[in-house]
Amino acid sequence: MSLEETPIPEIRVHPIRNGTVIDHITAGQALNVLNILNIPNPSSGVVSVLINAPSVHGIKDVVKIEGRELNVEEVDRISLIAPNATINIIRNFEVSEKTHVHIPEKVSGVVKCINPNCISNSNEPVTSRFTVKPDGRKITLRCSYCERTISEGIGDHLL
Amino acid sequence: MSLEETPIPEIRVHPIRNGTVIDHITAGQALNVLNILNIPNPSSGVVSVLINAPSVHGIKDVVKIEGRELNVEEVDRISLIAPNATINIIRNFEVSEKTHVHIPEKVSGVVKCINPNCISNSNEPVTSRFTVKPDGRKITLRCSYCERTISEGIGDHLL
Repeated sequence: MSLEETPIPEIRVHPIRNGTVIDHITAGQALNVLNILNIPNPSSGVVSVLINAPSVHGIKDVVKIEGRELNVEEVDRISLIAPNATINIIRNFEVSEKTHVHIPEKVSGVVKCINPNCISNSNEPVTSRFTVKPDGRKITLRCSYCERTISEGIGDHLL
Repeated sequence: MSLEETPIPEIRVHPIRNGTVIDHITAGQALNVLNILNIPNPSSGVVSVLINAPSVHGIKDVVKIEGRELNVEEVDRISLIAPNATINIIRNFEVSEKTHVHIPEKVSGVVKCINPNCISNSNEPVTSRFTVKPDGRKITLRCSYCERTISEGIGDHLL
């Protein structure tokens, strides 16, 4: 077969029977979403990811997971790095539920404080705890112990 | 619009005009491939990733990158974690080059030795260096200084 006849390997993206499509993820955050969901792992089904996809609001990422529905804790974590994401639950090839992520008022044990001297980073049995402040398309976290804020690169500080 | 009428968000995967499709990546290694290629970054084009895709040899990952051709050093790094990968260079919607990754005999400055006492991990100006031994669908690296071998989780030790 000559090169001209070589078919371009396709990323075949079928409709999924059951699973979740996370749409409108902040561009560049798809891999942090996978990290939150512990993907890849050998038992996960087929996962497709689109990074820097054109959209009406600029660019976005999309993650599509076959055979899995997310729980509330997972969606809360995703909301911190992708506050405009929508969660589409697919059942039997149809959108069964479509929700915007809900941004929680407080999160515990989800993000590590960036202040090395914060008591949550000591050897004391203190769980990290932040107040969440949405600000348009961004999120700011304020540590409940030391008041240090995190507004950039939250995905880098997930526990 | 009722939920039944809500269209399932599609991951639209068009043919690409120019770019690279990395096919037959060892399942679970796609994110390490992205890491080697410094993706995502704000200037990268559209990237699509398929994880745990069914294939004739079990499951595989696929990465498709618009507007970028890989250099030899990048492909050599990919070969260490995905020794069966194929690199398809797409130009003007056609496969212009299709190659299997070439597994180099030695690699320098690519992987960190897992032996904390290895001289390549000291403060000496010594670049890490390994002999590469392909073994079927796996790779084993042997440190040229301390002879410690790495055969599992090479992607976790990339520099």
